[in-house]
Amino acid sequence: MRLASFLVGNRPAYGVVTDDGIIDLSARVGDRYPDLKALLGASAEAVRAAVASAGRPDLRADDVVFLPTIPNPGKILCVGLNYHAHLAETGKAETAHPPIFLRVADSQQGHGQPLLVPPESHKFDFEGEVAVIIGKPGRRIAEANAWDHVAGYACYNDGSVRDWQVHTPQWAPGKNFYRTGGFGPWMVTADEIPPGTVMTLTTRLNGEEVQRTTTDLLIFGIPHLVAYLSTVMPLETGDVIVSGTPGGVGAKRNPPLWMKAGDVVEVQVDRIGVLRNPVAHDPAAQ
Amino acid sequence: MRLASFLVGNRPAYGVVTDDGIIDLSARVGDRYPDLKALLGASAEAVRAAVASAGRPDLRADDVVFLPTIPNPGKILCVGLNYHAHLAETGKAETAHPPIFLRVADSQQGHGQPLLVPPESHKFDFEGEVAVIIGKPGRRIAEANAWDHVAGYACYNDGSVRDWQVHTPQWAPGKNFYRTGGFGPWMVTADEIPPGTVMTLTTRLNGEEVQRTTTDLLIFGIPHLVAYLSTVMPLETGDVIVSGTPGGVGAKRNPPLWMKAGDVVEVQVDRIGVLRNPVAHDPAAQ
Repeated sequence: MRLASFLVGNRPAYGVVTDDGIIDLSARVGDRYPDLKALLGASAEAVRAAVASAGRPDLRADDVVFLPTIPNPGKILCVGLNYHAHLAETGKAETAHPPIFLRVADSQQGHGQPLLVPPESHKFDFEGEVAVIIGKPGRRIAEANAWDHVAGYACYNDGSVRDWQVHTPQWAPGKNFYRTGGFGPWMVTADEIPPGTVMTLTTRLNGEEVQRTTTDLLIFGIPHLVAYLSTVMPLETGDVIVSGTPGGVGAKRNPPLWMKAGDVVEVQVDRIGVLRNPVAHDPAAQ
Repeated sequence: MRLASFLVGNRPAYGVVTDDGIIDLSARVGDRYPDLKALLGASAEAVRAAVASAGRPDLRADDVVFLPTIPNPGKILCVGLNYHAHLAETGKAETAHPPIFLRVADSQQGHGQPLLVPPESHKFDFEGEVAVIIGKPGRRIAEANAWDHVAGYACYNDGSVRDWQVHTPQWAPGKNFYRTGGFGPWMVTADEIPPGTVMTLTTRLNGEEVQRTTTDLLIFGIPHLVAYLSTVMPLETGDVIVSGTPGGVGAKRNPPLWMKAGDVVEVQVDRIGVLRNPVAHDPAAQ
């Protein structure tokens, strides 16, 4: 099942994306579950019942404006340097634990909406990744139980303003410019992607492939990330783990390849879909 | 005016702390302003009117359990290495921009409540700091206008699990263990602390002073931080900027000085108050 958050006119909504259109679940069960995060906190049976009773799709994809799949995660936990090909291109040392940094909710953008190049930098880079959305909350989750806590998966573009990422040793500023991170187009629920499924992840800039990997090449796999992060903090429903980008980022090319206004960037994960975002100047800064 | 968030029994509440007790504002205007963050989003006149109409204190400090002053900030933006004495003791290089990392809301703890030592580490360190709470939202705020966006100030203990902070180059894990960061006891509104007021910040562990500075020694002062951070992202009402710790942290002493269960740690900022927390084992891990 593909679950998405979106706007219908000005109304925030969520629903099921089918091949025949979108079922607006929030119009039916929004009183009980005000957003997709709340729906994910319901039992799987409750979600299935909500979908089963919802009937036919009532919206076309063109009728909605996609929001980040989870517009309001409690935490967005990002993993750096989690594929050897990316680690190698950065020249950084491998660490015994996953490097973790955080994004804030406002740094995210929905499918089809523009990723914004700030006027302060032209070094705006793509990072295609697989996002893991937490369902069942937990603390100090054992690796063996980690999959029980995964509600589903989405594509993520961990858009990075490189000079602001590295002008101090802490990456947060370059990772948190407003509306620089694509998240979507939807999440595919975990029942359709069995634990450990190897997925192919590709990133394309203006139609040209710039990154490709398979998820079995993650240095720290999903069970390890869930166990590690839940040792530090309780994982809650709707929290997002952004699992890391493979080799090929624009900053490490010669010459560097930056995203610029007018470009289109896509992150594709098989079994999930294609997250597509145009790139635009930050209109707030015109 | 001192504004605090707290529990009355199991009910989340907020109010004004006076020398004669606490005025439970949330019991009066909670329908309009469900939490302190919402109240700060109201006009200064609305806040004064709410307080003026509230009458006499109705709670004693003993009647409440303090929560982090803002329990649910949209963003907690922390500044590293922002006093020369601390920079020197770490041996790190000064950077032209402030090193920024993020905390999550669950990592915070209220005044009087225990900061939790996780079983995974005994290297639990104190960091006394001044927290700045944002009132008026803004993006790309000029330094000259920064003070207009400050709602008030609180004490903060940026409690740090040092080995988890440095086992990769990114500090987030060591800065985000559950209930490790003290925030309170209340915020003092900006009208009582004029722009640029030099405040003395001290940290005490079991009554012994371990850190002391004055805020004029900040490398990046509050206007700079507001301008820098608001370039990256919109600052919203209730966002928290944790401005950095001075020299004297436990990790850089010889021998190191760690906080352990049974200790009491205090962060005092003149004109604000004393944030006092016992230190305890994480009960979830027993």
